Amino acid sequence: MSEETRQILDMNAFRPGVTQADPAVARRLRNLGAASVLFYREPIEMVAARGAWMEAKDGRRYLDCYNNVPSVGHSHPQVVAAVCDQIGRLNTNTRYVVEVVDTYIDALKAKLPESLENVVLTCSGSEANDLALRVARAATRARGVIVTETAYHGNTELTTQVSPSAWKRGGKPDWVECIPAPTPKTARNFGESVARAMAALQARGHRVAALLADSIFSSDGVYADPQGFLDAGVEAVRLAGGLFIADEVQPGFARTGSAFWGFARHGVVPDMVTMGKPMGNGFPMAGLAARPEHLAMFCRDVGYFNTFGGNPVAAAAGLAVLRVIADEGLEENAAWAGGRLKSGLGRLAKETGCLGEIRGAGLFLGVDIRKAESGRPDPDRTSGIINGLRDEGVLIGAAGKHGATLKIRPPLCLSAEEVDHFLGAFERVVAG
Amino acid sequence: MSEETRQILDMNAFRPGVTQADPAVARRLRNLGAASVLFYREPIEMVAARGAWMEAKDGRRYLDCYNNVPSVGHSHPQVVAAVCDQIGRLNTNTRYVVEVVDTYIDALKAKLPESLENVVLTCSGSEANDLALRVARAATRARGVIVTETAYHGNTELTTQVSPSAWKRGGKPDWVECIPAPTPKTARNFGESVARAMAALQARGHRVAALLADSIFSSDGVYADPQGFLDAGVEAVRLAGGLFIADEVQPGFARTGSAFWGFARHGVVPDMVTMGKPMGNGFPMAGLAARPEHLAMFCRDVGYFNTFGGNPVAAAAGLAVLRVIADEGLEENAAWAGGRLKSGLGRLAKETGCLGEIRGAGLFLGVDIRKAESGRPDPDRTSGIINGLRDEGVLIGAAGKHGATLKIRPPLCLSAEEVDHFLGAFERVVAG
Repeated sequence: MSEETRQILDMNAFRPGVTQADPAVARRLRNLGAASVLFYREPIEMVAARGAWMEAKDGRRYLDCYNNVPSVGHSHPQVVAAVCDQIGRLNTNTRYVVEVVDTYIDALKAKLPESLENVVLTCSGSEANDLALRVARAATRARGVIVTETAYHGNTELTTQVSPSAWKRGGKPDWVECIPAPTPKTARNFGESVARAMAALQARGHRVAALLADSIFSSDGVYADPQGFLDAGVEAVRLAGGLFIADEVQPGFARTGSAFWGFARHGVVPDMVTMGKPMGNGFPMAGLAARPEHLAMFCRDVGYFNTFGGNPVAAAAGLAVLRVIADEGLEENAAWAGGRLKSGLGRLAKETGCLGEIRGAGLFLGVDIRKAESGRPDPDRTSGIINGLRDEGVLIGAAGKHGATLKIRPPLCLSAEEVDHFLGAFERVVAG
Repeated sequence: MSEETRQILDMNAFRPGVTQADPAVARRLRNLGAASVLFYREPIEMVAARGAWMEAKDGRRYLDCYNNVPSVGHSHPQVVAAVCDQIGRLNTNTRYVVEVVDTYIDALKAKLPESLENVVLTCSGSEANDLALRVARAATRARGVIVTETAYHGNTELTTQVSPSAWKRGGKPDWVECIPAPTPKTARNFGESVARAMAALQARGHRVAALLADSIFSSDGVYADPQGFLDAGVEAVRLAGGLFIADEVQPGFARTGSAFWGFARHGVVPDMVTMGKPMGNGFPMAGLAARPEHLAMFCRDVGYFNTFGGNPVAAAAGLAVLRVIADEGLEENAAWAGGRLKSGLGRLAKETGCLGEIRGAGLFLGVDIRKAESGRPDPDRTSGIINGLRDEGVLIGAAGKHGATLKIRPPLCLSAEEVDHFLGAFERVVAG
């Protein structure tokens, strides 16, 4: 990714030096230094959150349509109760047997393809993807990895190497090949795209170990359709002896409304599934589901133990999340509220020249912002809309190669009133 | 590390196939597969824990002298209260300003050398070390790393490459050089040892980026003395343009009794400090403290953001841990209780031929187990003592190149009665 594109993607991020008047922001900059990444030209200090709403220190309330970690709703009472109950009784590691840990893994496996019999719990999606890539390499005795051109898969050294959206200078290792994001126009060529990438790897002496893909292509700009396009790419990789790793950190846990996992919308059964963000509704936890024979091949070479991974408090949080999704019908609500949101945006697009393609599934939508005259991507207007929505009390973000796609990702509990609140604010901002 | 040594180190771990009669153990094996690492020939199912004690499903209570994660005591009420209060109000990420996060970082920085002005919060020590190595490489534009021969620094690809204790087959990259553990006999040659390692790296075309060391050398077998021996190695690395990364995941947070950090016992100021396990008393959190200019050099090349790292619940847990350590005088107690434990073990060593060197600081002790006749390391007897103590209701582990060092690491709140309880059980087991 070029420095220019990176700046565009960072456009709604705070740039040090611009606003240091706020002592809380100045303190944050002193503490995190160059690793500080605050949202918005004027960062927001948050003090509380509940359901779909966050509350700032100045008393303003914001409808959170961006953060997919508190996916069943901020501060959900059932998740909070589960964490508080367990943390007061026992918090230890997987070197002892603790019932709730296996109860959770059993519940998680009941949602996964039968072939993925083993689950390794980790702390972050980065750790899960880092492990998945090494398991794939051990299982295939190959090294090459295929990802999309603006993908993000984590922050460790290995996962950064397969995350083009994190590269500021250089960055692409020899064993990585990037394919274009599957747009509605090109998605049907996904299999050919993967085949070309394998040929390019082969030309550099690398057999393919894995195709690693987020099945909603979040940081590429949200590409969900047509359902089934993934299949040809997965088949191509398997024919060459490689594995398909479904990175479900973004689309997993009922987000897409039409299935519990993003890959299920495409009718494929992955060789490994990684998961993270919404898994514990904010309690730090993530994981990898794999076939026993693949995991065993990795464990012959290297030991793996994760101190915090699979602790009983995380398991209790994860179990509560699964129960809330079922009890509150959140998969169905994601479909329903997502549908209402998408058709509302569709109506506005007919009246407003700057709105291009509206994509996505369930409560994960991408809206291209374009120049009305030329139809070309308009990152400045995208930034203007995001900041305008912030002034209206609505939080969203941006994605895509050009940084010109609005990323809309509210909690799965979004109500009809909240959908309409979003649409009202959105209409005022795009008309303004 | 050879497969033989690895098996010795795993000696108190459960081997699949040995005891599958217990349905809870069989279920765990089905769930975690080859990644399952359970303690003891007959694994323990835990149901509760408080202070220094854990309780199993069969009603037996165990004095936990092994797990240094719940370092201020299992289920500590102040940490539990802090987590429950914060998780019910707000749990979000560092893209917003949240007061408790900066209050925590300020409190942590008050315990650290002044030069380490920036703190990046992560989920695990593995993530912290993975980032630290990359920051060191960016800051030095060099690649080589020096670690001790049985070191453990994490479970990501990059940190596994610098963790000889995790290598089952092959594993040592070209850019890694291992130095012997600093035994009481060899510690004074630590500087020469590091210089030789740098020459070996140079011969393979690598300048040194970092010396990465756990200043209590936990997995090497616990080597704490003489205080100050680290200094010569640190100086040698700096003269060659490299950095010293202090991995405080094991000795940090008052464990050694004589200082808040392990490196402080040696009078050195590290270029980076990584921390983890005891930081949140079990709440998943870890971090890296670095000089602003080093972090900035890394952030010019690659972006870094950690979704769960620095969440307000972790910050609240971490702040409670710092307060409990201060309020309950746990650094002083680690010194006092550790002293009582060490002298008790010393008395027993005079009466028992199998006890060799007793090393360590505060509540982190290593005891070599040797054959009475030859004085050689005795891994079988070590395993026998660990399993014998389990039968006495006391949990400890093993470490060291030969797997013949008892690793004793109780919570910092250990009382006089608990020290004596340990010593009584220990005496019965070594006499038996």
